[in-house]
Amino acid sequence: MSLKNFNDRMLPAIEAELKRIVSRLDEPRTQVFHNMLTYHMGWSGEGAGPEATGKRIRPLLVLLTFAASSRLSTKNVEEVGTWKSALPAAACIELIHNFSLVHDDIQDDSDLRRGRLTVWKKWGIPQAINVGDALFILAHMVLLETKEKFSPEKALQAGAIINEACLALSSGQFMDISYENRNDLFKEDYWPMISGKTAALLSACTQVGAILGNAEESAQENYRGFGHYLGLAFQVQDDYLGIWGDSAQTGKSTDSDLVEGKKSLPVLYGLAKKGPFADRWNKGNIQSNEVDALSEQLAAEGAKLFTQEAADQMTDLALQSLRAAEPQGAAGEALFELAQMLLSRKA
Amino acid sequence: MSLKNFNDRMLPAIEAELKRIVSRLDEPRTQVFHNMLTYHMGWSGEGAGPEATGKRIRPLLVLLTFAASSRLSTKNVEEVGTWKSALPAAACIELIHNFSLVHDDIQDDSDLRRGRLTVWKKWGIPQAINVGDALFILAHMVLLETKEKFSPEKALQAGAIINEACLALSSGQFMDISYENRNDLFKEDYWPMISGKTAALLSACTQVGAILGNAEESAQENYRGFGHYLGLAFQVQDDYLGIWGDSAQTGKSTDSDLVEGKKSLPVLYGLAKKGPFADRWNKGNIQSNEVDALSEQLAAEGAKLFTQEAADQMTDLALQSLRAAEPQGAAGEALFELAQMLLSRKA
Repeated sequence: MSLKNFNDRMLPAIEAELKRIVSRLDEPRTQVFHNMLTYHMGWSGEGAGPEATGKRIRPLLVLLTFAASSRLSTKNVEEVGTWKSALPAAACIELIHNFSLVHDDIQDDSDLRRGRLTVWKKWGIPQAINVGDALFILAHMVLLETKEKFSPEKALQAGAIINEACLALSSGQFMDISYENRNDLFKEDYWPMISGKTAALLSACTQVGAILGNAEESAQENYRGFGHYLGLAFQVQDDYLGIWGDSAQTGKSTDSDLVEGKKSLPVLYGLAKKGPFADRWNKGNIQSNEVDALSEQLAAEGAKLFTQEAADQMTDLALQSLRAAEPQGAAGEALFELAQMLLSRKA
Repeated sequence: MSLKNFNDRMLPAIEAELKRIVSRLDEPRTQVFHNMLTYHMGWSGEGAGPEATGKRIRPLLVLLTFAASSRLSTKNVEEVGTWKSALPAAACIELIHNFSLVHDDIQDDSDLRRGRLTVWKKWGIPQAINVGDALFILAHMVLLETKEKFSPEKALQAGAIINEACLALSSGQFMDISYENRNDLFKEDYWPMISGKTAALLSACTQVGAILGNAEESAQENYRGFGHYLGLAFQVQDDYLGIWGDSAQTGKSTDSDLVEGKKSLPVLYGLAKKGPFADRWNKGNIQSNEVDALSEQLAAEGAKLFTQEAADQMTDLALQSLRAAEPQGAAGEALFELAQMLLSRKA
C-alpha cells in the first residue's frame, strides 16, 4: 500500500477527528468564536477547502509511525484500521501546530496564511490570541482520550513528550523574535532555534506514534531522531528555497526571504562572511529589484553550497534514523515515501 | 489553626514550587525569556516582591480544600504537611491564572498590572504572547507530577477538570472581548461571561483539591459549587467596588469602572433601564469629573441595591456549598476564613 492509499484513508479520519473536538465550541453563545477556529482550520469562510487546511503532515506522521511500529497488530493495521486509536494523539499535535501558527501570525505581523487573511487580520489581535489559546486547550482535551484507547500511563507518557515539545517550541519562538533585532548571529544560534521552532513538534509526532505503537525503546529513540532530523532538513531546505527556489526567483521576488529580512541559514552564513552581501544587508531593507543580484552574490560567497550540504546532511540523518527504527509493513514504506516527498520539494 | 498559620506555611511552599517549575527556562539561551516570566510572577525586576506576586488565592484554595477533605490523613495534614503532595496541582492552576493575565493585559490594552508595567508594555506584544504560552505549557508540565504523588488516574482526572475550566475561561474571554462592541446586553449575558472568566478556574481549584483529597462524590460536587459561587460573588463584588468602592470614590476617579467603560453588572443593569444613566453612557466616554454624579444616578436607578443583592446571594450560595461539603479540621475553618476575607473587601 503506497502513501497515497494511507492518505486516502487517514486524511478524512484526521479531519473528522479535528472537527469533532473543535465542535466543543459550537454552542449558541460561542458561535462566532467557533467560526474563528473553523476558519483558521480551513473549513469555513472565504477560500475554505483542502488548499486552506494545510497538509496535516504531523498527524499523518503520528498515525504512520504508530502503524509502522505497532508490533502487536501489524496485520490489522492495514485492514481494520487500528491506527484509528491513535487519532486523538494525532489530532492533539495538529491542534498544537495550529495554535502556534495563529500566534505566530500575530508575532510575525503576517497578513496571509495559505493565501487567506490571518485570524488577527480578520478579527483583531485580542480575539486571535484567544483563538490560539482555545486551540491549545482543545489539544490537551483530545489528548486525554488516549487514556481510553490505550492506558492512563500511555496518555501521560504522550502528554509529557508533547509538553516538552511545546516548551521547546516556545523557547524557539523566543529566540526567533529576539534574533530579529540582533546582528551578531551565526549558525550556532540557528540550530537551537529551528530545533525548537520546527523539529520539536515533528519529533514529538514520531515519538508519540512509536510509544503508542509499543515500539521497543531503541526504536522509539530512532523514530524520535527521524522526526527531529526530518524537521531540521525541512527547515534548512525551506531556507534554501526561500532564496534560490522557484517562487523566490520567478520575479515574484516579494516572496524572497531576502526582501522579508528573514535570518535564515544562508543569510546568517553570508553575514558571518562579512563580504559584499553582509555590507548590503547591514545597510537596511532589501528591495525586490536587488534580489537577483544579491542571491547570486550570496551564492558566490558559498552560502548556497553550504546550505545545500546542510540540508543533505540532515536528510541523510533523517533517513538513517528511520532505517534504524525498522518500520514495518506498508506503513513503514509510506513513511519513507512521506519523508522523500517532504525533502524533495523544489518550491 | 487559623488561616494565617496555613498562609505562613503554604505560601512559601507555593512560591518555591512555582519557582522550581519556571526555572525550566533558566538556560543560557533563554535567560531573557526566563526573566520575562520571573518578572511577571513578581520575583524580579522593578517592584518585585510580595506586592507584585498577587495573593496566590487559587493555589491556597487547592491546598486548603485538599487538606480539609482528605479523610485519610486529617491528622497528618496539619502536622506533617501531607498537603505538599497537592503542590504540583496548586502550582498548575496558579500558572494557568497567570497565563491568562499576561494575555488579558494585551487584550485589554492594560499598561499596568499590580502597579507595575505589564509584560507586553515592557517587551512588546510578540514576546508577551509567547510568555503567556510558556506559562500555560509549564502549567501542564507540573500537573503531570501529580501522577507520582497520587496515581495516573488522579492526574488525568485533575487534568480533565482543568482543561474544562480553561475552555470556559477562553469562552468567557471571547464573550468579554465581543461585548465591548455590543450595546444590546443585559444580565443574561453577564453570568455566562463571568462564569467563564472568573468562576471556572476557582471551581477547578476546589474540585481538584477535593478529588486529590479523596472526598466523596457529593462533597466533591459541593466543593466545586463553593469555588464556583465564590468566583461569582467575588466578581459581582468587584463590579460593585469598581463604582461605589473606596478607590472609585476618592477622587482618583480614573479607577472607576465608569471611566474605563467596563460593562460590569451595575452598568448592564443601568443600560437595560434606558434612563438618564443609559442616555449619558450611550453618548460616549465618561470623564473623571462626571463620575460622582453618574454613580449616584446609577444608584438612584436601583443598580447599587441590585448589585449588592446579587453579591449577597452568591456569597450565601458559596457559604452554603462550603458548609454542605463538611470541610474537616483546621483547614476547614481556614477555608471559611478565606471565603469571608475575599467576600468582605471594601476596596
